[in-house]
Amino acid sequence: MPSHVHIVGAGLIGASLGIGLTTEGWTVTIDDLDPETARLARALGAGAELGAAQPDVVVVAAPPSAAPEVVARALNQWPDAVVTDVASVKAPIAQAAHDTGHGDRYVGSHPMAGREISGSLAAQGDLFKARPWVVCRNGATDGAVTRVVQIAEALQADVVFMEAVAHDAAVARVSHAPQVAASAVAAALGTLHPDDIALAGQGLRDVTRIAASHPGMWADIARLNRHNIVTTLDHIIGDLEDVREADDIGEALTDLIERGRLEVARIPGKHGGAPRDWAGVTVIVPDTPGQLVRLLQETAAVNVNVEDIAIEHSPRQSVGLTTLYVLPSSASVLVAALEANNWEVVRS
Amino acid sequence: MPSHVHIVGAGLIGASLGIGLTTEGWTVTIDDLDPETARLARALGAGAELGAAQPDVVVVAAPPSAAPEVVARALNQWPDAVVTDVASVKAPIAQAAHDTGHGDRYVGSHPMAGREISGSLAAQGDLFKARPWVVCRNGATDGAVTRVVQIAEALQADVVFMEAVAHDAAVARVSHAPQVAASAVAAALGTLHPDDIALAGQGLRDVTRIAASHPGMWADIARLNRHNIVTTLDHIIGDLEDVREADDIGEALTDLIERGRLEVARIPGKHGGAPRDWAGVTVIVPDTPGQLVRLLQETAAVNVNVEDIAIEHSPRQSVGLTTLYVLPSSASVLVAALEANNWEVVRS
Repeated sequence: MPSHVHIVGAGLIGASLGIGLTTEGWTVTIDDLDPETARLARALGAGAELGAAQPDVVVVAAPPSAAPEVVARALNQWPDAVVTDVASVKAPIAQAAHDTGHGDRYVGSHPMAGREISGSLAAQGDLFKARPWVVCRNGATDGAVTRVVQIAEALQADVVFMEAVAHDAAVARVSHAPQVAASAVAAALGTLHPDDIALAGQGLRDVTRIAASHPGMWADIARLNRHNIVTTLDHIIGDLEDVREADDIGEALTDLIERGRLEVARIPGKHGGAPRDWAGVTVIVPDTPGQLVRLLQETAAVNVNVEDIAIEHSPRQSVGLTTLYVLPSSASVLVAALEANNWEVVRS
Repeated sequence: MPSHVHIVGAGLIGASLGIGLTTEGWTVTIDDLDPETARLARALGAGAELGAAQPDVVVVAAPPSAAPEVVARALNQWPDAVVTDVASVKAPIAQAAHDTGHGDRYVGSHPMAGREISGSLAAQGDLFKARPWVVCRNGATDGAVTRVVQIAEALQADVVFMEAVAHDAAVARVSHAPQVAASAVAAALGTLHPDDIALAGQGLRDVTRIAASHPGMWADIARLNRHNIVTTLDHIIGDLEDVREADDIGEALTDLIERGRLEVARIPGKHGGAPRDWAGVTVIVPDTPGQLVRLLQETAAVNVNVEDIAIEHSPRQSVGLTTLYVLPSSASVLVAALEANNWEVVRS
């Protein structure tokens, strides 16, 4: 039974929530500290004005640094409402909720709507579709948890239950510290001449892709999750120092690579399973429209499903190396079919 | 005028060189410390036995740790031959060549044939096609350099001239230290429960992709390029420590991200230019064969060229989010066309 949801904060996430729930037929109201932002969101269909109504659920979509205080205020202001928030750090907010004495009505949310989103993009009701949405129940009642899960499910997000403390430790290791490390690897390119950076391959591009992110909310996130980020950086710095200071750098690096490989194998790939050992078939693809389509058509024609694709452009030539990742049992069929159609298949 | 090339070392790189040059009509001989490896490479068409012939060019394709000594020996053994090698660290080998007094006949090569290659893959004559091949002339004569460039060009590699010292400093920053950092980020996942690692998104997968590499020759490479790797790790560790120890971690991280972004913008993307600001159009693609083809067909039908593709699988659902990167001027055309064909376009 759709409830009345009131959204506090009409930035991209708040407005997207409002549009999505409104589209699904929910009663939605939305507000923002900035009246102009609130007006714009309402004009976009993200909800109405609250007026004197009493919401069933309040979603705090304020910046992370403000979230603990805004959540505490909401719990006090609406004594019958379930309160949730959308910040990417959860324990400090759960603590603030607990301190009000109304922690049984607070449920933490972390909709993981993609790191590339920034305020410059328009709000979209389908922003959360097929994305993980972490729900941290902490001390909340079953009824409160159900209310929040209903919101996530209405937006077709993929609900994941976690405790707030475990969530924050995990995101430090899977998201926050990797951002710090990627930015540090990128910053170390500063001494290089442009001609030297031209030696960069796909490996560097992969490692530093997130280093191109806008700083955006990273300052807020780092402050709220400082303890876990520092602990993770301790671990990473320790491993880098072991390599730097080893009597035999070769042995130290081999040891670190071996330890890292074991962990990479635990990162879920497709559909929550461990990544399969896909076979890569690399093909030289001329850089003209339609070539990639032709490649995939001929792949589909022999009933081979493409699990992933990587496109690597050669620095000075108008061809790209495209690798199709397929089930190992399909690789030889695919190579034979592509070669029969005059594709140049190379080793990846 | 194709020369007689003698290859010392019949592993994947040596044998691939031999097959490629033989295919192009060159006179090729090949040998290996291990007679069985040499016999196998010859059986694969990588060259003949040297016998009493005098090669014009000797390519040392020994493991990096052995390369300095084998290059020096080759310069002494064949007093009329140009000698090159294929190791991914160049200055120590150039030094060993110089020390023989025959440095004018030594030219360093670094064919960058892709990091995912390992000995388990069969040798292929087209391994070097469309890949960068760094040539370090050091103190070599013009004639010696020409001989080596002819080999790279015969294999359709993309020749890049650099000095050995600059090459080694650059690969420490664009390849060696990023490998160390990626492995350290991965190793820090060791404390996490499998359910917690499930929060990993595309960012972590990108940063740690190369951490899945086999240690392979990394020990040799690290020992040969220790000085540059240590200098780069000093830089990276310093930046990580600044974040870890900052009074205001938010400000420190913002500063690091800003510095990193400036450098990422210098990494060449397509065809040697700075990466264009492609627009990403993200579509929900059901995980059944042929869907990706249909998506790309409909993209080609409106004359939009796909510059890159990223496929992200949702942890628990049988759909994938596929992002097509296109010229910004093409994005709205593409979105309209896809939506008209009932694709679900989401924000990326």
